[in-house]
Amino acid sequence: MVPHLVPRWPVCLFQWRAACTLGACVPQSAWAGASRTPGPGSPRGAVGTSPLVRRGGSSSSSRAPEVMLTRERYPVQRLPFSVVSEEDLAAFERITPGRVVTDPEELEASNVDWLRTVRGCSKVLLKPRTTEEVSHILRYCHERNLAVNPQGGNTGMVGGSVPVFDEIILSTALMNQVISFHGILVCQAGCILEELSRYVEERDFIMPLDLGAKGSCHIGGNVATNAGGLRFLRYGSLHGTVLGLEVVLADGTVLNCLTSLRKDNTGYDLKQLFIGSEGTLGVITAVSILCPPKPRAVNVAFLGCPGFAEVLQTFSTCKGMLGEILSAFEFMDAECMQLVGHHLGLISPVQESPFYVLIETSGSRAGHDAEKLSSFLEHVLDFGLVTDGTLATDQRRVKMLWALRERITEALSRDGCVYKYDISLPVERLYDLVSDLRARLGPKAKHVVGYGHLGDGNLHLNVTAEAFSASLLGALEPYVYEWTAGQRGSVSAEHGLGFKKKDVLSYSKPPAALQLMQQLKALLDPKGILNPYKTLPARA
Amino acid sequence: MVPHLVPRWPVCLFQWRAACTLGACVPQSAWAGASRTPGPGSPRGAVGTSPLVRRGGSSSSSRAPEVMLTRERYPVQRLPFSVVSEEDLAAFERITPGRVVTDPEELEASNVDWLRTVRGCSKVLLKPRTTEEVSHILRYCHERNLAVNPQGGNTGMVGGSVPVFDEIILSTALMNQVISFHGILVCQAGCILEELSRYVEERDFIMPLDLGAKGSCHIGGNVATNAGGLRFLRYGSLHGTVLGLEVVLADGTVLNCLTSLRKDNTGYDLKQLFIGSEGTLGVITAVSILCPPKPRAVNVAFLGCPGFAEVLQTFSTCKGMLGEILSAFEFMDAECMQLVGHHLGLISPVQESPFYVLIETSGSRAGHDAEKLSSFLEHVLDFGLVTDGTLATDQRRVKMLWALRERITEALSRDGCVYKYDISLPVERLYDLVSDLRARLGPKAKHVVGYGHLGDGNLHLNVTAEAFSASLLGALEPYVYEWTAGQRGSVSAEHGLGFKKKDVLSYSKPPAALQLMQQLKALLDPKGILNPYKTLPARA
Repeated sequence: MVPHLVPRWPVCLFQWRAACTLGACVPQSAWAGASRTPGPGSPRGAVGTSPLVRRGGSSSSSRAPEVMLTRERYPVQRLPFSVVSEEDLAAFERITPGRVVTDPEELEASNVDWLRTVRGCSKVLLKPRTTEEVSHILRYCHERNLAVNPQGGNTGMVGGSVPVFDEIILSTALMNQVISFHGILVCQAGCILEELSRYVEERDFIMPLDLGAKGSCHIGGNVATNAGGLRFLRYGSLHGTVLGLEVVLADGTVLNCLTSLRKDNTGYDLKQLFIGSEGTLGVITAVSILCPPKPRAVNVAFLGCPGFAEVLQTFSTCKGMLGEILSAFEFMDAECMQLVGHHLGLISPVQESPFYVLIETSGSRAGHDAEKLSSFLEHVLDFGLVTDGTLATDQRRVKMLWALRERITEALSRDGCVYKYDISLPVERLYDLVSDLRARLGPKAKHVVGYGHLGDGNLHLNVTAEAFSASLLGALEPYVYEWTAGQRGSVSAEHGLGFKKKDVLSYSKPPAALQLMQQLKALLDPKGILNPYKTLPARA
Repeated sequence: MVPHLVPRWPVCLFQWRAACTLGACVPQSAWAGASRTPGPGSPRGAVGTSPLVRRGGSSSSSRAPEVMLTRERYPVQRLPFSVVSEEDLAAFERITPGRVVTDPEELEASNVDWLRTVRGCSKVLLKPRTTEEVSHILRYCHERNLAVNPQGGNTGMVGGSVPVFDEIILSTALMNQVISFHGILVCQAGCILEELSRYVEERDFIMPLDLGAKGSCHIGGNVATNAGGLRFLRYGSLHGTVLGLEVVLADGTVLNCLTSLRKDNTGYDLKQLFIGSEGTLGVITAVSILCPPKPRAVNVAFLGCPGFAEVLQTFSTCKGMLGEILSAFEFMDAECMQLVGHHLGLISPVQESPFYVLIETSGSRAGHDAEKLSSFLEHVLDFGLVTDGTLATDQRRVKMLWALRERITEALSRDGCVYKYDISLPVERLYDLVSDLRARLGPKAKHVVGYGHLGDGNLHLNVTAEAFSASLLGALEPYVYEWTAGQRGSVSAEHGLGFKKKDVLSYSKPPAALQLMQQLKALLDPKGILNPYKTLPARA
């Protein structure tokens, strides 16, 4: 027998600022509320204001300010779809008995996006339970030329999940059954990501994706928007981890590609068409997805870096020394930390620094992981790449450290009017855009912050101001998009285009690509009834 | 400073049969020849006989037996494409001066597939160097209604890479330039996989795919056929690792989606359409692909298992105990070992066993990996899942062990007439098909063998006989396909459909899927000039 060398964890490698104080320093309520937004019960009024919100009251008002109707705010014309009639409602009642919602108050939550930036005026929401019901609904709508807005958890950032006009809302909320699980999860599209995570974790697996909206978002919506999130660095894109899909096409045809095979090269891989198509090519009704084994050990290090050059060097050192156990590399700048402190009462667990990084490892052997992490931390401290840091291994503290990164969105939304950009850039240029903008905007902006999934080259760039200002918007756009295009970046890394960003597609894709996208849309949805006004710019 | 606990490797955990003897037992020439077939210089005549080969001489004949023309062997009708004229040749000469091949001897190698099972009669092969040249060629062919057969390394298994009739062969052989590399490789489609591997390894990265044909296959062909191979278990599908593509469409339009971004959600992910479409939707001219860091330590264990149940238990133990460092889990049965012994002179490094598994680990810290592997091996030995085994860490012995698995195809091709199937199945049923067939075929077959990428649920099922027999074929088909369909498996896991398997598509895909594939083909290639007679069954 060979002795197993399990190294002991160096309990105090460097300043362990947070270990004893983190729970105490931060108001318990703030930490307890660190469920990733938007949670099912999150008070919509408290989360988010934006240029498109009529800010009728203060953000602390108990009553949410009314959101302006999209059709009033934006120069968008209703397309000549039919209008839902009494006969249509009766037909829907036959397809989904007792699950046809027409009550305006109940509809309100599904007409407005969670950021409270866009608002439709749909008069009916349908809650099918089965693929057959979805098929009947779409067949009916196709024949009647009725527009349909597929909706999952309504947690999108670009106005893709709510109607623009009076589209029928097709909710997957009741399609929430797990179909099978054997390392590969097969489930209906309306399963909530967090519930799926719990389900597979009880069976010693994890979901290959995780994101702030996990408490509300539906797996079908995740796939439809090709959600990225926090585990992308390790487990990659949904284009790789989704093994099969069941999709209902615009005319009601059920396309069953719900295989659970890791390899299948029989013909074109049709499911790929629907991943990231934002409900404009078909309605995803079920998903088959590969789940990685649950890691036995998870460590999170939260570190302060003296500059962005050191953030980059920390990242490259980290890839080399942590190798296969690295599961996240996130960064945030000093202004982000100020905002989560000011608006949410979260206190930095490390000394004030220009930049912070959050590094997560997930591995199969705690001792080995700790040893790798310890060597890495020693190295980055020795070389001055990191000036201070804290580590967490138990679940509660891991969550606390993650909250500092994950709740930035929430803190921003409390800071006033937010201009949000989600950009992919070559990693070495990632922060230049933030610095450039800060200089360009000067006192016009309240805050210009940069944070995001550095490991994936994904910057979340946010600018806040006291109130909406056309001149600020003019200083931001198209500057941000042109800057990004100049670096051959993507103007939407993971949020998609939805309604709000559809017109900037051409900054990242050439005309030939746009033309083919339009052709695919016309092929799969010739009447254009599926999630109209989204993803693709209107044809000239 | 924390002491680094680097465990010492247990040099003799169990019988180290091969460590000293492997190089000596096996004729050096055999091992030296263990380049993964087909290599650029592999004698085609010695590799492969099949039901479709006119076996004019013995397989040991120095002159390759002539392969029957596909149009004579199969009931396939030429479609009404134009015939290449002298004017066409002159036009091609203007587009690719000095790179228009019409010499029959030179054309022969590109008209016949490497398995020597299908043979076209193309009269012209073009060797463009640039995307613009490919675009000009396709624009011309589209206007003239000339059919085109895109060809990479011509290493496909299903007759997808050679003409069926007189299609113009469009070779990517001269499109072999690396465009850029910064962890993400951007290169032309005609780069040979092994050369790219060498290129990125010199820079401390590896290619995310590896396969037997690496010495000849082109990266463009790999992507066009969605190649799986030996690293799939660890790095996943090309749908996840390919970040961008440049494709020339049937009418010559250049679709430039050659981004190097890990995340890009601007519109539909068009590149996915072309991954695995076998050159029938467009010609891939350049590829952007994510390269993982080169592992610092690679270990290979070659183990003998007493039964298939133990193979499965070894796999599940392995996933748990090796976790993130597991990079391959391959299996082969006893008959495979007999064949590589008999035909190639390779000698088993472990005691005779009903099954063998090859496990590879790739990690960032040799000591940790060795410790994990040692615990795992101890466990599987203690529990009787494995009865004998050998380990290799140095590159030479690692290659030797891999050769046992990788050269099975070559050994089979020397065994007579080979019937090949490449099947995805739920892993627990993987070997049942082999046992069933062995019982069903009885003495009709010479050998019925099963091997493959167990970790991916991918079985390579091969049956050999002295000569082609219609009754043996009748006993195999559609039985194998029906059996697979009964398990909801895939009748082509990684080889694709090409010409030879296109008619079995419907065993793994429903009619609605087939219809959408036909529509996509019609949209992207309305004249059907790109790789005709392949991938999709002929329309009724």
